[in-house]
Amino acid sequence: MLEVTRRLNDRASLTLYMLDREISYRVFKEHPTLIICPGGSYLFRAKKESEPVALTFLARGYNVVVLNYTTYFAERVDLKSTKPKTDAKSHYPRQLKELVQALKVLKELSAKYQLNLTRLFLLGFSAGGHLAASYAVHWNDHEYLAKIGIDANDCLKLRGLLLAYPMLTGELKALILRGKKNTSIMEQLPYLNPAIYGCEQPTQAQKAELNLVQQVNASVPPTFLWQSLQDKVTSVEDSLAWVTKSTQLGIECESHFFGSGKHGMGLANDIAAKTSADEDAACSSWVELADLWLRRHDAIAGEA
Amino acid sequence: MLEVTRRLNDRASLTLYMLDREISYRVFKEHPTLIICPGGSYLFRAKKESEPVALTFLARGYNVVVLNYTTYFAERVDLKSTKPKTDAKSHYPRQLKELVQALKVLKELSAKYQLNLTRLFLLGFSAGGHLAASYAVHWNDHEYLAKIGIDANDCLKLRGLLLAYPMLTGELKALILRGKKNTSIMEQLPYLNPAIYGCEQPTQAQKAELNLVQQVNASVPPTFLWQSLQDKVTSVEDSLAWVTKSTQLGIECESHFFGSGKHGMGLANDIAAKTSADEDAACSSWVELADLWLRRHDAIAGEA
Amino acid sequence: MLEVTRRLNDRASLTLYMLDREISYRVFKEHPTLIICPGGSYLFRAKKESEPVALTFLARGYNVVVLNYTTYFAERVDLKSTKPKTDAKSHYPRQLKELVQALKVLKELSAKYQLNLTRLFLLGFSAGGHLAASYAVHWNDHEYLAKIGIDANDCLKLRGLLLAYPMLTGELKALILRGKKNTSIMEQLPYLNPAIYGCEQPTQAQKAELNLVQQVNASVPPTFLWQSLQDKVTSVEDSLAWVTKSTQLGIECESHFFGSGKHGMGLANDIAAKTSADEDAACSSWVELADLWLRRHDAIAGEA
Amino acid sequence: MLEVTRRLNDRASLTLYMLDREISYRVFKEHPTLIICPGGSYLFRAKKESEPVALTFLARGYNVVVLNYTTYFAERVDLKSTKPKTDAKSHYPRQLKELVQALKVLKELSAKYQLNLTRLFLLGFSAGGHLAASYAVHWNDHEYLAKIGIDANDCLKLRGLLLAYPMLTGELKALILRGKKNTSIMEQLPYLNPAIYGCEQPTQAQKAELNLVQQVNASVPPTFLWQSLQDKVTSVEDSLAWVTKSTQLGIECESHFFGSGKHGMGLANDIAAKTSADEDAACSSWVELADLWLRRHDAIAGEA
Repeated sequence: MLEVTRRLNDRASLTLYMLDREISYRVFKEHPTLIICPGGSYLFRAKKESEPVALTFLARGYNVVVLNYTTYFAERVDLKSTKPKTDAKSHYPRQLKELVQALKVLKELSAKYQLNLTRLFLLGFSAGGHLAASYAVHWNDHEYLAKIGIDANDCLKLRGLLLAYPMLTGELKALILRGKKNTSIMEQLPYLNPAIYGCEQPTQAQKAELNLVQQVNASVPPTFLWQSLQDKVTSVEDSLAWVTKSTQLGIECESHFFGSGKHGMGLANDIAAKTSADEDAACSSWVELADLWLRRHDAIAGEA
Repeated sequence: MLEVTRRLNDRASLTLYMLDREISYRVFKEHPTLIICPGGSYLFRAKKESEPVALTFLARGYNVVVLNYTTYFAERVDLKSTKPKTDAKSHYPRQLKELVQALKVLKELSAKYQLNLTRLFLLGFSAGGHLAASYAVHWNDHEYLAKIGIDANDCLKLRGLLLAYPMLTGELKALILRGKKNTSIMEQLPYLNPAIYGCEQPTQAQKAELNLVQQVNASVPPTFLWQSLQDKVTSVEDSLAWVTKSTQLGIECESHFFGSGKHGMGLANDIAAKTSADEDAACSSWVELADLWLRRHDAIAGEA
Repeated sequence: MLEVTRRLNDRASLTLYMLDREISYRVFKEHPTLIICPGGSYLFRAKKESEPVALTFLARGYNVVVLNYTTYFAERVDLKSTKPKTDAKSHYPRQLKELVQALKVLKELSAKYQLNLTRLFLLGFSAGGHLAASYAVHWNDHEYLAKIGIDANDCLKLRGLLLAYPMLTGELKALILRGKKNTSIMEQLPYLNPAIYGCEQPTQAQKAELNLVQQVNASVPPTFLWQSLQDKVTSVEDSLAWVTKSTQLGIECESHFFGSGKHGMGLANDIAAKTSADEDAACSSWVELADLWLRRHDAIAGEA
Repeated sequence: MLEVTRRLNDRASLTLYMLDREISYRVFKEHPTLIICPGGSYLFRAKKESEPVALTFLARGYNVVVLNYTTYFAERVDLKSTKPKTDAKSHYPRQLKELVQALKVLKELSAKYQLNLTRLFLLGFSAGGHLAASYAVHWNDHEYLAKIGIDANDCLKLRGLLLAYPMLTGELKALILRGKKNTSIMEQLPYLNPAIYGCEQPTQAQKAELNLVQQVNASVPPTFLWQSLQDKVTSVEDSLAWVTKSTQLGIECESHFFGSGKHGMGLANDIAAKTSADEDAACSSWVELADLWLRRHDAIAGEA
């Protein structure tokens, strides 16, 4: 096994976990690569959506990259007692730029480690789902990318996109205020708009720019999406709208909306569960379903 | 085990499969009841959505009822070579009346067999999904039911509704004509409107009456829905609209849209598969997911 | 589905559960047949090893026969309060004769129901495992069978034998007395030797005749055996000796000895569990393992 | 995740893979530790029994240590074309000493990495199973350990031992000669006795010393053992004798003998399979069964 960490800038890095290509004496196997964007409201990066997910897919035969993108909190603190140090430069599209920069770094590493980057998948959780879906929506739009300072030639075509209870608009604050509030989320409220938009009061143009549901287009790759219907943080209706738009465009969007569970379950099994409330037998089936889906799309794209 | 068949009329019947309530010497267990409406375009009843599904859920601890509702073909024939004998009286709302009549028969049987009909679920496949969803939409609407000749007092409250690649409007003919046609479906085309509407050219009012997506309301019970996105017969967009409407109304609608598979997979495993094309590893997970969902809703409703 | 019961004599019967051979319109599938001998110390027949097991394998694509063989108790009673009516004629080899008679009845039924009896498996639990293993050991021994009044020509070759926590000698009483006694088993103690041997004090010859471990021979079919190591009723050492002997003779004996569980778990899931003490996650995997094993041996024998 | 490699001597090392103990912000979880001894006839170390197994259990919540013990071949070569460089000092009990030295290194690391070494399990494959079983048999025998140069105080109590198709005597050469030979194994034949015993012709005393079946004793921890009955390399009869002896001593030895498969399947799934001949659905269930077993024994020992 190989674990390589590369800095992208003073705040961001990527960690590449690679299976040994030599599976038996002088017998080599090439694996597809899965990039993971953990969630955390663009304020921090959730641990349970990083390493445990990476290892789960590594053990199932994927090379895995965890993108440690920049977040608004310089470090995670207990908001009940401590005022966090914040980073005013951490907002859209900074994380999208970091994702594209990570692709450049992977290209540099690919010769040394014999990574085949045509077999590429991207998985995002919650706010990391916003990041992943932003890439899926824009990766082939040279004009837009140039405008925000990204060279479209640095973008790579994905074999598939995976979204776990994704944030699909920037309106997280509004959503949370509309819903039934729980304490820990309410503490994050004052920081959400700066973390997402870079300001307290986003303009209509900013809102439109970050609303990905409205931007689903023919360049979006095949998608796998799952969410709990009990999710009180990101919007099930946004996810349904995403699936509906994709379907109308003829893009396969396998989707699983579980009646049980809640927001932010990660693997939904006991590996990273704080208590049994973080486990759900139905939701935890997403890993096996995603693995079947990944294998199928890896094979389909390989034939094309 | 008990297998009881009761006639509802000269063309329809129900078959009740019951587990022995005595699971050990003088130890009794009560099971929930699942009514199955197989599909078949209201022309015939698909075998693979009847017995194999019934036995699968029977073995998982449910009493199962298969509703053998009236269909347009008096008997199934090979349409390539034979003109079918048809039954002009077999069309909406006849099957809905038969379903309600089945509930009356079950009530009569309940004392003898100690069936607890408060623990009731309804599962429909394809056209059987239209029948099941019709019941879910109308069961509590006394005025409408009276109009079509059903006494609302004969209706029972469901703990949950399950829809497998359901037909959710009467517009099956239009849908098929719009899609990529396969031969066996095209042969059914001339019979579809008579079988569904009782006439060749349904009015707007008839179309509206049979369009269930437009009629989702607060009386619809919690729902579990699954479909293959490769379905070329019933509409994935209708299913997505059903889920979206349910969600907007606050009705839990667990839903699974699989990227692989096709229309009419039944169990999607090898039990009733004619060839391996009738099997799909992802789709076949619906049974375990439905079982988890049924147990959860049986428990929730039991506590209420 | 078809459920047919046939009497074998005034005390014994068989029940045949058959899947519909027509799995789709004019498409027929032939299923292998599994005969189940439930346990119950030859005193009674355990419900949890009858119907729930039958339905589980029926739903997995097998025709299933439950052998309701004669037992020592004329009917099951609560031994704490009631003296049971006993049947002095119910002892070895009566049940073995009934099993062979059941095969004759199945042969008679096979034309009518298109049963292919070359695809035959036999599964026994506990005392029913003694019955099944007796058949496996003797079915091809014309001389012995003639001696006990069975025509060897009535015997059918099995594709495989399945033993669930089997009783492999007649020394159940001695075993129980050696072990840690639990109340309900102790109540059965006075009846065991009459039920097994037909007398209170079996001779050495009788003990040897019913000791199947000593009689494993080259005619025993491939075997699948499972048991909990916590079993305090039947002997794990006997089972290990059976596996060892089979292996020495070159007979495949797939075997699973689970560290958890206890005697008499049946399916070991919640279907027929009185309390959660009757469930065990590890032991319950025997069904899937047995299904894989059955399919493999059904295929191997089919090719031969 | 943490991957730490420590040298034990010029030829041996250990690699420790640790999950992050912080599973969520300031929430810590302690994991049990599993030491893996890969197989390879003491000639080399099989890749498929190293990293893929390590990652599989790491992803299931274990800290994993791979013991890279010394082997007879200085490096792996293609024996068809190349004469291997050998290491005459690589033979029993060198590897056992290295295992004990690895425990000392782990003790040193335990403070730094907060490893709880009372929650310790040992898993060995094939020749690595001989190494693991040697430890299990001898770890508490101060006199014997002193004789071979090990300080018993360096040994740690195991919560459990796992043996995958273990070599349980040194008589691998004799076994292979008795069996049906396949080419790649025959090429290893001249090297086996030097690799195992350190000489071509072992004495009776040496054979007895390395025969672990004869040395099962009350200090052996609870054991999980699995093997394919089609194994043509290590002895199924030895494994059955080990299970029988353990059972007679009252040591739980969960054991799974699969009718399908072959020697050396590792995970038996497609992760490290060279061809589909290296996969087997039944055998691959050992991982889930082992995980259930590990969790149970981790909990039992934790309560004691």
